[in-house]
Amino acid sequence: MRFEGIFAALTTPFAPDGSVALDKLRENIARYNRTHLCGYVVVGSTGESVLLTFDEIDRIWNTARECAAPGKLLIAGAGVDSTPETIARVRRAAELGYDAVLIKTPHYFKPVLTPAALERHYMTVADASPLPVLIYSIPQYTGISITAEWVARLAEHPNIVGIKESSGNVSLASEIIHLCPPEFSTLVGSSGTLFPSLLMRAAGGILALACFLPEPAIEIYEAVRAGDIARASRLQFALLGPSHKIGGELGPAGVKYAMDCVGYYGGNPRLPLLPLTEAQKKTAESVLAEAIARQKLDHLGVAG
Amino acid sequence: MRFEGIFAALTTPFAPDGSVALDKLRENIARYNRTHLCGYVVVGSTGESVLLTFDEIDRIWNTARECAAPGKLLIAGAGVDSTPETIARVRRAAELGYDAVLIKTPHYFKPVLTPAALERHYMTVADASPLPVLIYSIPQYTGISITAEWVARLAEHPNIVGIKESSGNVSLASEIIHLCPPEFSTLVGSSGTLFPSLLMRAAGGILALACFLPEPAIEIYEAVRAGDIARASRLQFALLGPSHKIGGELGPAGVKYAMDCVGYYGGNPRLPLLPLTEAQKKTAESVLAEAIARQKLDHLGVAG
Amino acid sequence: MRFEGIFAALTTPFAPDGSVALDKLRENIARYNRTHLCGYVVVGSTGESVLLTFDEIDRIWNTARECAAPGKLLIAGAGVDSTPETIARVRRAAELGYDAVLIKTPHYFKPVLTPAALERHYMTVADASPLPVLIYSIPQYTGISITAEWVARLAEHPNIVGIKESSGNVSLASEIIHLCPPEFSTLVGSSGTLFPSLLMRAAGGILALACFLPEPAIEIYEAVRAGDIARASRLQFALLGPSHKIGGELGPAGVKYAMDCVGYYGGNPRLPLLPLTEAQKKTAESVLAEAIARQKLDHLGVAG
Amino acid sequence: MRFEGIFAALTTPFAPDGSVALDKLRENIARYNRTHLCGYVVVGSTGESVLLTFDEIDRIWNTARECAAPGKLLIAGAGVDSTPETIARVRRAAELGYDAVLIKTPHYFKPVLTPAALERHYMTVADASPLPVLIYSIPQYTGISITAEWVARLAEHPNIVGIKESSGNVSLASEIIHLCPPEFSTLVGSSGTLFPSLLMRAAGGILALACFLPEPAIEIYEAVRAGDIARASRLQFALLGPSHKIGGELGPAGVKYAMDCVGYYGGNPRLPLLPLTEAQKKTAESVLAEAIARQKLDHLGVAG
Repeated sequence: MRFEGIFAALTTPFAPDGSVALDKLRENIARYNRTHLCGYVVVGSTGESVLLTFDEIDRIWNTARECAAPGKLLIAGAGVDSTPETIARVRRAAELGYDAVLIKTPHYFKPVLTPAALERHYMTVADASPLPVLIYSIPQYTGISITAEWVARLAEHPNIVGIKESSGNVSLASEIIHLCPPEFSTLVGSSGTLFPSLLMRAAGGILALACFLPEPAIEIYEAVRAGDIARASRLQFALLGPSHKIGGELGPAGVKYAMDCVGYYGGNPRLPLLPLTEAQKKTAESVLAEAIARQKLDHLGVAG
Repeated sequence: MRFEGIFAALTTPFAPDGSVALDKLRENIARYNRTHLCGYVVVGSTGESVLLTFDEIDRIWNTARECAAPGKLLIAGAGVDSTPETIARVRRAAELGYDAVLIKTPHYFKPVLTPAALERHYMTVADASPLPVLIYSIPQYTGISITAEWVARLAEHPNIVGIKESSGNVSLASEIIHLCPPEFSTLVGSSGTLFPSLLMRAAGGILALACFLPEPAIEIYEAVRAGDIARASRLQFALLGPSHKIGGELGPAGVKYAMDCVGYYGGNPRLPLLPLTEAQKKTAESVLAEAIARQKLDHLGVAG
Repeated sequence: MRFEGIFAALTTPFAPDGSVALDKLRENIARYNRTHLCGYVVVGSTGESVLLTFDEIDRIWNTARECAAPGKLLIAGAGVDSTPETIARVRRAAELGYDAVLIKTPHYFKPVLTPAALERHYMTVADASPLPVLIYSIPQYTGISITAEWVARLAEHPNIVGIKESSGNVSLASEIIHLCPPEFSTLVGSSGTLFPSLLMRAAGGILALACFLPEPAIEIYEAVRAGDIARASRLQFALLGPSHKIGGELGPAGVKYAMDCVGYYGGNPRLPLLPLTEAQKKTAESVLAEAIARQKLDHLGVAG
Repeated sequence: MRFEGIFAALTTPFAPDGSVALDKLRENIARYNRTHLCGYVVVGSTGESVLLTFDEIDRIWNTARECAAPGKLLIAGAGVDSTPETIARVRRAAELGYDAVLIKTPHYFKPVLTPAALERHYMTVADASPLPVLIYSIPQYTGISITAEWVARLAEHPNIVGIKESSGNVSLASEIIHLCPPEFSTLVGSSGTLFPSLLMRAAGGILALACFLPEPAIEIYEAVRAGDIARASRLQFALLGPSHKIGGELGPAGVKYAMDCVGYYGGNPRLPLLPLTEAQKKTAESVLAEAIARQKLDHLGVAG
């Protein structure tokens, strides 16, 4: 099994009373099942993982497992600061039949989380995990940066099969691809650098943007595979705004609002994340409208 | 009730099998009970809060409640990224008879955790909390910085009664003291700036260092109260090394090793925190020995 | 005149006594003249601009002007913290017949150098400059970051014709290209992201790496123009090591040592920059050898 | 000669045409001469050193030398990024009869300015300098941080006699004092931490705030020397606002405006520094008025 293509980093829908709305999750997944998405990350950063209890996570994982169409790969966001708790979550994901786990760098105790300490964490998790492990680096949230050499050392472990690299640093992603074996999957987490990363042989992307604009992300991937560089580049330009202004600046609340705009269920995030202000909604709407218009023009054969 | 004086930020002892060693916690607290410590923070950063399950935290809180001598104030480290989960923990601490809760700034979703979002978090928690709330700011771990004006706004809430300010920034602590009402307790979290902060009218300190050197920290506090500035300054110089080299650079593993050195039970931290290397142990030992020698000289009336 | 293609960011050669070695500069330029480099930046960061007196800079600009082959564009690194001093330098570059000036973001007074203050600086310089102005952003040296919207506002000035964007952030470069008019030249300063940036329609690169490996950088540019994506990608992989390990980690001293290795005159940097240690020289040599081997294999038609 | 007490970090007055207004500098110094300031730093950060040509600096140094009252110590801000240029400036300051030089950490080439490279810079300058050298660390402008151990190594050089530590980090200043010999002068550059630093045996302060509020800064120093801790603490509270809001947030333009408010000549800064907006002026005025009112109340024996 190789992790390649476009994955959606699913949001977690909440009901008006603040509880997890599993029915809405089912509806969203049913619709994603009809796209060419390769699979889903369930309970990652976009899924507000740090705001959920493990009991809630268990129900979400279960529901996604039930709803995902055959052939869609399921990746459980299972990494927390504690190594033993990470292992407990990994085991649960395995019991539920997930295909892989995504393990975020521990980050709270920054001054002592040296590369050696982080390596020990991943090695311990990978040794214990019944499932293949994907590293997850997102320094804009964790404050923890990694190097390509460090990834290459971890990639020697037979159970560490890839990375979600969300910093948006294309030369770092390129170096990882350069130093790791060809079967290691380097997936990017930044939709603003999807196309250039794919050109540097990234295996694909795990994208929050794919929650509300799955098709254009998939089209970039397929255009690159088909050698249609000009088209992939045009689509990438169309996605710069949503990537930066919605996923980057507005976070999960922005992603959810954009989902509401295009017919998925987004809803509100959980506190301390705030729903968008009216001004932020206006920004999100216009950014989204421009991206969709550009993509449509492209389908009509009109240059962006 | 006012929060002033020196509090220990307790470590969480683990047994060799990795489980929480409640018996060791009891022994440590029994010994702390014989000092002039004003109270304990139970399950804060030094207590490896982010590495514990809530079930473990519950048992630790219970045990500390049972063991703490009458008159010792008990502060529960109850803040997590999620607002509703923070409230659930706060309520549990209230049921167990704690005196206050310490609420860390949420931090994972940094780009959207604006001052307004953080304010909303604290207001929501303070409204729901049966216990007085202490803000907890520790930017070296969270990457979230605050301003004195922001604290002053929160201090208007009748249930927000103080702050643990752990950045070590004395002018920030001074400004908080300047802008907040006199009954608001500004406690510092950095033992390297205890004395200068007390001179700027800080109410006290919540210190990891008080786990292994409670007496000199208390002596600084008492010397300042007694107007013995020269003595307080000498003791502060004696604590600079342990503060920087053990608490700061080595983190909870360093604090625990120093506890082992002076007869408390420290033990190993939980992964991903690593036990000290032999070289780190040597450093901790010599830093500790120098601090203790200086303090003893001071007791003998010899200038440091 | 449009600024596109590959430019070398020239080093400043020093004689063993520390004075500027203009003869060595002449020799280096004579050799660069025989490549397809589009031109030269004279006295930029790689040229150790901040370590030179203006008198020295004047002589270097003069010498480069004399030696540059007809058709090579000459860009003077003329930006300093002071707006009036920047204008004085710009005027001197114009007198000497330069084609454009490269104006670094002021940076010393970070807390007050708001986007508005930076904008005022560039507008004042552009109003006064007889030459077209290229913005220069290099946050790893200056600590000053910019946004695409800010660049787009400056791009409205008829005398601000492009930017050297050296952060290596491909999505930022892409957004600048997206928001600025097509005649605005976005040149990247990071050789590790040359190929992906060109795919996003960057106009070219101004590269320290082009001081010691001009041909492969030019080949990437020409391969992209010719639509040979696979070849451009292979060459980009070959340049990742030299980009990161020599230009990035070793700075001007590394670039100079690499020049010595391939037959240019590099020599020592000026203090406080230190010459490479023996271990650093070994690293630079092996990184360089690997890059050259990969490039040669590519010429022989063997996949990298 | 020991550097202790309060020094003003002089501003550089500019005439409306942008040239240096030496006559205004003379008037300001004449008035400072009547205070208990120990001396002046001429052409430091507050003096907009990075915005001046060396020719201008020479004339400013000359003028200050002529005007300073006998007994006022004169410290020349002589550090630039280049080691040889720093030495040339140091020699000129010596010819002009200055008492010491203040040498800022080089900072432009951050990634390669390791502690070893910075040490080499200071050792080379100190070897060549006819005048005693004071280290100058101001990470908020330079992005370069130092450690107490590093300072202690430099303090072994017989010609390195002190440091201006402007980070505002009291525990760092304390550690420097702790590790360096007693004759080494640790002067703080942050008026918001003057009193707590003096309590930790700092030798004094080099303060931008002393340009517009020299008396209260001197009174803090004298109160600490006289053992009047309560008074020193009250005055420190009075200075928190001007320190943070004027010196810190508004920079040299703020300092100059505050000087204008209290009867010195401030005037405008040089571009790219912008004059204060009307809103910023209002803030500066009210912060200043509050500080002066507090200080006066204190003189009348009314608690602040």
